[in-house]
Amino acid sequence: MNQLTKRKQLIKDWIYEAADKSKQSFNQTINIEEKTNRTDLVTNIDKEIEQFFIEKINAHFPDERILGEEGSGHQFTDLKGVVWVIDPIDGTLNFVKQQYDFAIMVSVYKDGVGYLGYIYDVMKNELYFASKNQGAYLNDKPLKKVEDTPLREGLVAISHRLMTSKINDDAREIGRASSGVRMIGSAGLETTRVATGKLVAYIGASLAPWDIGAGKVIAEELGLIYTQLNGEEIDMLKYNKTIVATPSAHKEIRMNYISKTEK
Amino acid sequence: MNQLTKRKQLIKDWIYEAADKSKQSFNQTINIEEKTNRTDLVTNIDKEIEQFFIEKINAHFPDERILGEEGSGHQFTDLKGVVWVIDPIDGTLNFVKQQYDFAIMVSVYKDGVGYLGYIYDVMKNELYFASKNQGAYLNDKPLKKVEDTPLREGLVAISHRLMTSKINDDAREIGRASSGVRMIGSAGLETTRVATGKLVAYIGASLAPWDIGAGKVIAEELGLIYTQLNGEEIDMLKYNKTIVATPSAHKEIRMNYISKTEK
Repeated sequence: MNQLTKRKQLIKDWIYEAADKSKQSFNQTINIEEKTNRTDLVTNIDKEIEQFFIEKINAHFPDERILGEEGSGHQFTDLKGVVWVIDPIDGTLNFVKQQYDFAIMVSVYKDGVGYLGYIYDVMKNELYFASKNQGAYLNDKPLKKVEDTPLREGLVAISHRLMTSKINDDAREIGRASSGVRMIGSAGLETTRVATGKLVAYIGASLAPWDIGAGKVIAEELGLIYTQLNGEEIDMLKYNKTIVATPSAHKEIRMNYISKTEK
Repeated sequence: MNQLTKRKQLIKDWIYEAADKSKQSFNQTINIEEKTNRTDLVTNIDKEIEQFFIEKINAHFPDERILGEEGSGHQFTDLKGVVWVIDPIDGTLNFVKQQYDFAIMVSVYKDGVGYLGYIYDVMKNELYFASKNQGAYLNDKPLKKVEDTPLREGLVAISHRLMTSKINDDAREIGRASSGVRMIGSAGLETTRVATGKLVAYIGASLAPWDIGAGKVIAEELGLIYTQLNGEEIDMLKYNKTIVATPSAHKEIRMNYISKTEK
């Protein structure tokens, strides 16, 4: 990828500028719309931040394509060439209700392989970053490879939809087999907790490429496994039921706790 | 209560000193024991911090009794006089597994009524404090009364035990009726999220007086309702199934989502 050092500096600058926009909005009236249902929200701030990234990327890297949550990027049928994956606000429900526990996520893929991943926890001022084969960092401090803790000895994060399911007890079964369930409500931040060894697994009900892109680069750089829940590779062109976990917890969850229909 | 100004300053000093002890332990090998089961833990740090508070209180307020989680305080059959309620580390499982999302909690009751309540989020350096009829504060900044948001429009925190129950779907029903479930794993920190309007309710499966004492003083000062899940007053001499919530969410949850056996 060309201009890598400059590219990394630009992305950091853009993320911090976008974070300022998100925080400034706390003093404004924001416009909230429902997308697929009343808990799937989008605000004018999500849209403005996505637009901000698109303008910056177009100005500096006009030949590269952009896959963004709010749909103002390009349409995709393949992942050839360099693709930017943007989640302007991950955890929009938290952004609206808590003004806390939301993240800005950016990643850069080349021919379907993740090269750069950024998750910025805005309210904690924690920037998680990884570059393929170059390690992962929290605010420029190297992160250690994650210990391979088994499910029984660790905490797990599981999405609201799976934990409250009326028809499927699998997620709760995993929770009962673990040390305990935690639910943050941001795929990015839940992934950073696995990446720092706080949790041994995070299971997402239906994650889009922009929910996954950055976290996958960071997680894999730290020895974690990030796949679909059935063990297949992530498909960056569709929604995925996901697991990111230590190798032990990943294996145990797939082997013991996923209904046959999932396999 | 005598020496109120001095008492408040002492408590703050002790909490910060105790927090330093908890953080220093991250560089040491800590001794972890199971209490009632493998997810109910106690460490030597919980015990040392409780002992630290007991020594300080005995030195400054020798006539006052102490109710502490780790049992090194007094035995109680009533709440007459001044009673200190101490949770040296709330969220011990988080302390051990995440080194994050745990709190030090202190409260002072007189004849069963809470007068002072402190919840210190150690890793975020956030000290929540309330004094009966004198308001509640976060790091000395006054907190606003909480808006009376209904269940449908808010996030709720629910304990692991209730969310993963095999036999009772009530908790999940509440989750589905809300905007979403969040699980932090510290009764104190979940209560501070209700106290700052981030959540509309927190439901605890089986909270002891030391899990409740400080949070109840803070919550009530901000217009929230803190009771047993069946609506009865908290009993500070036993374990309680609890709810702390906005008035609207409290009413709705009690009326619509608690099985008849609970009422």
